[in-house]
Amino acid sequence: DLDGTLVDTRKLVEMSRRKSVSAMMKAGLPGTEEKIYESLLKIVEKTGSNYDRHFNELLKEHQVQMAGKIIAAGVISYHESKQNNITPFDGIPEMLVELKKKYTLCVLTNGKLVKQWEKIIRLKIEKYFEFVFVSEEVGKRKPDPAIFLYALKNTGFKAEECIMVGDRDTDLLPAKELGMATISVGDIEGADFSVTNPKDILDRVKQIES
Amino acid sequence: DLDGTLVDTRKLVEMSRRKSVSAMMKAGLPGTEEKIYESLLKIVEKTGSNYDRHFNELLKEHQVQMAGKIIAAGVISYHESKQNNITPFDGIPEMLVELKKKYTLCVLTNGKLVKQWEKIIRLKIEKYFEFVFVSEEVGKRKPDPAIFLYALKNTGFKAEECIMVGDRDTDLLPAKELGMATISVGDIEGADFSVTNPKDILDRVKQIES
Repeated sequence: DLDGTLVDTRKLVEMSRRKSVSAMMKAGLPGTEEKIYESLLKIVEKTGSNYDRHFNELLKEHQVQMAGKIIAAGVISYHESKQNNITPFDGIPEMLVELKKKYTLCVLTNGKLVKQWEKIIRLKIEKYFEFVFVSEEVGKRKPDPAIFLYALKNTGFKAEECIMVGDRDTDLLPAKELGMATISVGDIEGADFSVTNPKDILDRVKQIES
Repeated sequence: DLDGTLVDTRKLVEMSRRKSVSAMMKAGLPGTEEKIYESLLKIVEKTGSNYDRHFNELLKEHQVQMAGKIIAAGVISYHESKQNNITPFDGIPEMLVELKKKYTLCVLTNGKLVKQWEKIIRLKIEKYFEFVFVSEEVGKRKPDPAIFLYALKNTGFKAEECIMVGDRDTDLLPAKELGMATISVGDIEGADFSVTNPKDILDRVKQIES
């Protein structure tokens, strides 16, 4: 998995949304930061996180001059914040270096093809992965076992030879069902092993191996 | 007008496309820079400049592994180049300072609301303009006189009190028809005045005034 496993997307997105709210207020959006942020979250919930007109929707709720200026100020601030603040969880690159010595590494993530790849490139971790499967490209999403079967077919590995690492049961349950070993980042019922800090994944891999 | 009048969008976009081609080649896209650039231009021509999947279309023409990585490398490079290299034509900010002392300044541009505003903000010229009209928001595009009439209605000016500055006849001919004075950046048949360097607009405005 990628989001929540290798990168703290939740924190990054929350920070970027807050910065964009503050930029939109500076550009003339009236209200309090908390109220606007809450309205934005409601819009995201309603339209999905990959919809690209959240701020346009937000501005529809307000009668303001120069809505375009406010939206653009938010968009600029959001993207700059995401670009400048995206970092892998602590210890991840070092762990990937170690894992790559013995294993074929693969990302299996839900999301938009280009958005997910942008994250991987900006995280500077693309060199560790021989395969990257993104649901938009595959046409199937986790927890559908079909995306796992697609990955197995395209990598040439058997499920029994794989370890799936993820932070949600949509990552782990179908993997387990197919016969993979599983490591959860955070508590997930049914995971073979779990870690609190993503950098401890390495120790769990060694445990599985022994 | 904005593109071609205040900012050399053509040069900026060409440079950014070339940088993205080079980034995609580095990420694994096979071919020569010229051939790929030409393919890209054909796709842009076919799908329009505001379509947001030009690189996806380009990659469809190639049988490559990791298309997502290549597309994302191109997208990152394209946006970084546009963000880092956008500048107004020489002398434009100084000219706007002078014009603003006597005139109400207004941008009337075709394009996407947020994209056009992003340019205006990144050019740091938003403080000079009391009004910005973007075709996407108005629902009418130049050369439709309706967008000029919308601008007149919303600014409260009469056509005879206005000077329209633009680099295309779609900017100038309807403006002239409505009774505005016109200044062309570059040669446009029928323009009242024309300039080679956008910074000379100030001199033409003074000529019109006297």
